[in-house]
Amino acid sequence: MQRTYNFNAGPSALPLEVLEKAQKEFINYNETGMSVMELSHRSNEFEGILLNAQQNLRELLDIPENYEILFLQGGASLQFSMIPMNFLAADQTAGYVLTGSWSEKALKEAKKMGKTAVIATTDENKYRSIPKQNEIILPKDTLSYLHITSNNTIFGTQWHQYPELDGIDLIADMSSDILSKKIDVSKFSMIYAGAQKNLGPSGVTLVILKKELLDRIPDQLPTMLDYRTHVKSNSLYNTPPTFGIYMLSLVLEWVKTQGGLEGIEQKNHEKAALIYNQMDAYPDFYRPHAEKESRSLMNITFTLPSEELTQEFLSQAKEAGFVGLNGHRSIGGCRASAYNAVPLEACQALAHFMETFRKRFL
Amino acid sequence: MQRTYNFNAGPSALPLEVLEKAQKEFINYNETGMSVMELSHRSNEFEGILLNAQQNLRELLDIPENYEILFLQGGASLQFSMIPMNFLAADQTAGYVLTGSWSEKALKEAKKMGKTAVIATTDENKYRSIPKQNEIILPKDTLSYLHITSNNTIFGTQWHQYPELDGIDLIADMSSDILSKKIDVSKFSMIYAGAQKNLGPSGVTLVILKKELLDRIPDQLPTMLDYRTHVKSNSLYNTPPTFGIYMLSLVLEWVKTQGGLEGIEQKNHEKAALIYNQMDAYPDFYRPHAEKESRSLMNITFTLPSEELTQEFLSQAKEAGFVGLNGHRSIGGCRASAYNAVPLEACQALAHFMETFRKRFL
Repeated sequence: MQRTYNFNAGPSALPLEVLEKAQKEFINYNETGMSVMELSHRSNEFEGILLNAQQNLRELLDIPENYEILFLQGGASLQFSMIPMNFLAADQTAGYVLTGSWSEKALKEAKKMGKTAVIATTDENKYRSIPKQNEIILPKDTLSYLHITSNNTIFGTQWHQYPELDGIDLIADMSSDILSKKIDVSKFSMIYAGAQKNLGPSGVTLVILKKELLDRIPDQLPTMLDYRTHVKSNSLYNTPPTFGIYMLSLVLEWVKTQGGLEGIEQKNHEKAALIYNQMDAYPDFYRPHAEKESRSLMNITFTLPSEELTQEFLSQAKEAGFVGLNGHRSIGGCRASAYNAVPLEACQALAHFMETFRKRFL
Repeated sequence: MQRTYNFNAGPSALPLEVLEKAQKEFINYNETGMSVMELSHRSNEFEGILLNAQQNLRELLDIPENYEILFLQGGASLQFSMIPMNFLAADQTAGYVLTGSWSEKALKEAKKMGKTAVIATTDENKYRSIPKQNEIILPKDTLSYLHITSNNTIFGTQWHQYPELDGIDLIADMSSDILSKKIDVSKFSMIYAGAQKNLGPSGVTLVILKKELLDRIPDQLPTMLDYRTHVKSNSLYNTPPTFGIYMLSLVLEWVKTQGGLEGIEQKNHEKAALIYNQMDAYPDFYRPHAEKESRSLMNITFTLPSEELTQEFLSQAKEAGFVGLNGHRSIGGCRASAYNAVPLEACQALAHFMETFRKRFL
């Protein structure tokens, strides 16, 4: 079978080895005579899967013991509301750094809950860059937290150095670059991520939460929207998305076979370079959206000299078997998402295609 | 391969034919060269799956055109909060009929949002029965809605005749008996159900909502918790649990091959009768929790004459290969959940086991 060159922005490619393992044991998991989907979420088998996933995450990301690891539902979009519900007190202000559509959405939900402040934004340059450390000016009054989006799928930018904040809780939406490189978890009070890019299938939301933050949660929140509910029950308050967590556990095992996050990061650099090199060689033909120092290794965005040429490129790429190269419907253009599971060969093939296509015109 | 006799209360058995089809196309869906999990949720392929699932639900349940069909996340537990957030106005009262732990939980969340009233309850008889029509006495002031739990997984009771309400919006949690029989959707203003019993894997929540109700939703709700968000985007506001919706679509196709809901209902009667007959023949040995006229066809609950004997039964049943027969951890005892996908053979085997076990003592 020919695997498609899948550059979808999410849901996106999964490692073939993971899919093959899941397929093999799809109807009979670990000789139980049942599919993973048919296991009780309170069975030893499923508990084993859940604990294994948590343990592997802790190991791979080097998550300190004073952080909880939760598997929730609703995607990053529900976290946009849960974060201010849980952590934005009435007399405080929540700070947001705007680097694209997703941070705007996070801010919009926080505004419904309390006072907010935009601490920095790059919207005036169409979100082509990430604010520099000296552009992040904290206000005098206490911030309940500072929220950033670590990677911006739509604009193709990524934080390469996280803001240094003295004593302010940093919360990051890492939906689109979690597990793509080593990070220092201890610099964050909370990290969250929809699974459907680097972690597994859609329908699972990973939350990594510093235990201290739990003390700040007000009472009388809806039970499902109170992080303490999920901490107390180890993500088993109600039925979790069991199959999604199982797939995530397989993806984590796969990451370990790739040399862990060091191996993954190196490969991600290699993969992205193949495509960025095409852009850098002919920057008037493949015009990057992101400024060089803010480039994302996950989502590579560009346009061609005219809308007609952009469409021609997309249409021929599609014919050639590439999937998911259209830019986000809100801004158009082209976007190649090269998440962890996108193989090097797919990036090589795309680079080759870009070269061949360009040569017809230049 | 030997399939296990799976009587789990949820997640629970799925039809073998569905699992086999999903396994076959697990890595290469419909010749796309991708797994369903790797498809963009905005691709034609996934949209086809989603629309097909909605169309089949509409057909099977005969859902009128003035009802929306949504696929959400968070399970029934999140609906417990969303319902009052969306439909309980400040000057109104939400009515709840209590028939078990799940309706208690639904009430608890509503209490956080506004005024509530318990319209009827059977807690004084340990939830052994469903209130009769004449026990449902509506208050004089307007109810924003009346909430019921159509089937009670823990206590093993089920509404066989829904309350007749003049002009009051009836909302039902049908998590554990949706699609198990024909129902008249037009009697309800909203029906919701976690998928993990009769619809598919966990991680998808079905909501069937009368369009009129949308006008009552207040502004400034968190975007993800406002039903209008999901109506406007046809459940694609953010990334939905794509694989879960795909599995649900396969389950619906399977229900059609079983003679639709008429065929399913008849088989459910047959299956439950096999087990209830064992209880009725020796009611002092297999002691039913539910009163006869309130018995659930989905969850069959009983205890044996002593706790020791109950444990002996459970332990031997487990050894004989039966899974999921323990009662809910909150009440203990035994429970056989015979959802749609539990085959007749499994119920025959359980009935046989019950008979053999009983004969050793009686």
